[in-house]
Amino acid sequence: MQELKARIIAEQPRFNATLATEVGTLHPLVQPVAAHVLKAGGKRLRPLLTLLVARALGYADDDIYPLACSVELLHSATLLHDDILDDADLRRGMAAAHTVFGSTATVLAGDALLALANLIVARYGDPRLTACISEAIIRTATGEIVEIAHMRGTDHGRDTYIDIITGKTAWMLRASCELGALRAGASEEAVRAAAAFGLDLGIAFQIVDDALDFADRADTGKPVGGDLREGKLTPPLIYYLETLSGPEREAFISRFRDGGFSGDDVARISAEIRALGIIERTRELAGNYIEKAAASLETLPDCPERRTLMQTLAYVQHRDR
Amino acid sequence: MQELKARIIAEQPRFNATLATEVGTLHPLVQPVAAHVLKAGGKRLRPLLTLLVARALGYADDDIYPLACSVELLHSATLLHDDILDDADLRRGMAAAHTVFGSTATVLAGDALLALANLIVARYGDPRLTACISEAIIRTATGEIVEIAHMRGTDHGRDTYIDIITGKTAWMLRASCELGALRAGASEEAVRAAAAFGLDLGIAFQIVDDALDFADRADTGKPVGGDLREGKLTPPLIYYLETLSGPEREAFISRFRDGGFSGDDVARISAEIRALGIIERTRELAGNYIEKAAASLETLPDCPERRTLMQTLAYVQHRDR
Repeated sequence: MQELKARIIAEQPRFNATLATEVGTLHPLVQPVAAHVLKAGGKRLRPLLTLLVARALGYADDDIYPLACSVELLHSATLLHDDILDDADLRRGMAAAHTVFGSTATVLAGDALLALANLIVARYGDPRLTACISEAIIRTATGEIVEIAHMRGTDHGRDTYIDIITGKTAWMLRASCELGALRAGASEEAVRAAAAFGLDLGIAFQIVDDALDFADRADTGKPVGGDLREGKLTPPLIYYLETLSGPEREAFISRFRDGGFSGDDVARISAEIRALGIIERTRELAGNYIEKAAASLETLPDCPERRTLMQTLAYVQHRDR
Repeated sequence: MQELKARIIAEQPRFNATLATEVGTLHPLVQPVAAHVLKAGGKRLRPLLTLLVARALGYADDDIYPLACSVELLHSATLLHDDILDDADLRRGMAAAHTVFGSTATVLAGDALLALANLIVARYGDPRLTACISEAIIRTATGEIVEIAHMRGTDHGRDTYIDIITGKTAWMLRASCELGALRAGASEEAVRAAAAFGLDLGIAFQIVDDALDFADRADTGKPVGGDLREGKLTPPLIYYLETLSGPEREAFISRFRDGGFSGDDVARISAEIRALGIIERTRELAGNYIEKAAASLETLPDCPERRTLMQTLAYVQHRDR
């Protein structure tokens, strides 16, 4: 994964500078909220996908950078709204924006970032790009609403879970890739392949994330089993539920519904999930989507960027934090 | 104002049908939230502006309806977000969405409506339209943030107030008019005039709204003096503050800052504001913007739609609820 890591390090300053320039166009009162959530950072995976896909499809112009950053702004907007909704105090180890700036300014700054993403994309003068980012916003919000509607329920299965994460996580990665392909002026076939690659990569990303929620993460300081506490029926819990029967199963379902798990319960169930090999089984599920993503990617021209994109698949599948 | 009233009644069913069709494309879980806020209704002033401006500039195609409704969706999205932020229980006499559907689904449905507005506009394939609606979202959210930042303060003057309402209210009406002119393929000059008309109309609309906040509204059941309670320094309060001096002024400023007005205080101050002729003075301030809007409008071709648009000015200036 050397090439991927090198590329991340090489491109990050440029992405950050572009983000700073775009956010700098907002009102001075909005900027600190936006800067705060952007500072919490991350690897800028979404802009990197846009860039790599565009380059892989032969697009050499550096005007791709703002377009690449549009989805990162959209992602930041959803983080601002999610933190309020989750009432989270921390975001990647930093104080969540709403604890610093208040809920109202945070919701509104999120709205401004959503619109800024649209405005940046509109500058390119290509309605397909605007449709792509608008669709991504709708899909993301819808995925989160569907997730909430199924919270604490155990009657829905894996298909519903996949629908939820397709919206709340994967569609934005799909959009990142599709924007790059569209801007590169790629064939319809190549645009479809890039979009499919991003979507399956995104699904795999979220499945691995949900596996890691039950991993032993003493080193990261992250609490274990958050999804169990919040009542999200992710694959580890779907698989765990399959191992239960009779009164034990009934008791689990009832506590899952009522949010009645103690800290000890969560620790015990997380340990059982690990002992049962469920984390590996969940990674295997992710592996199916990684394979589909790889197959889509292989229809694009062979080049250094395609190899780097292939490495993002390996990174997503094997990451352990 | 007969023609305006007739036009509102004539067009409302078509606007409502268009809104229903567009909202019908959202996920079944998002639709009820969106339908709820749209049902709270209003006169559909924003779509009417788009339609009338486009028709006044010679655009005959009925594909204007979805475009006209895009700003209404944006307006609905801001109502959903505002109701949460204000923690309002009622919206135009109906239960506020978040009290029915919960805060989380309401914020996310607002995001979906913002994006739906963008998506509808993107369908027209004209990047100027997309830029216009994105800019309107940013300006609206920014106006609200600036308002919050000045809440309970008395040091800022009328210019800041005008800046705030230009964002939070007027920019959306500006966008409604600009979209209509752009779609009509009008000259740059006509687009500018339509936008200026909408902006000044919007500023006047909000000033009158802020005057009515202190009017005797026993018949409407609306509470009087909400802006005094919330600490918004609107023109009636700017003018009222000018009449105070010495310890009386200090006491007012300190209570305004701390939110310490009793119900009796609010009733007394509202009565004083009425007795001092401040409501009329505030309407006169709105009149300046009405005049500017009329001057912009007069540069457009004379036609029935221009006359109807002129009537919206009279309606905004003289409405008493």
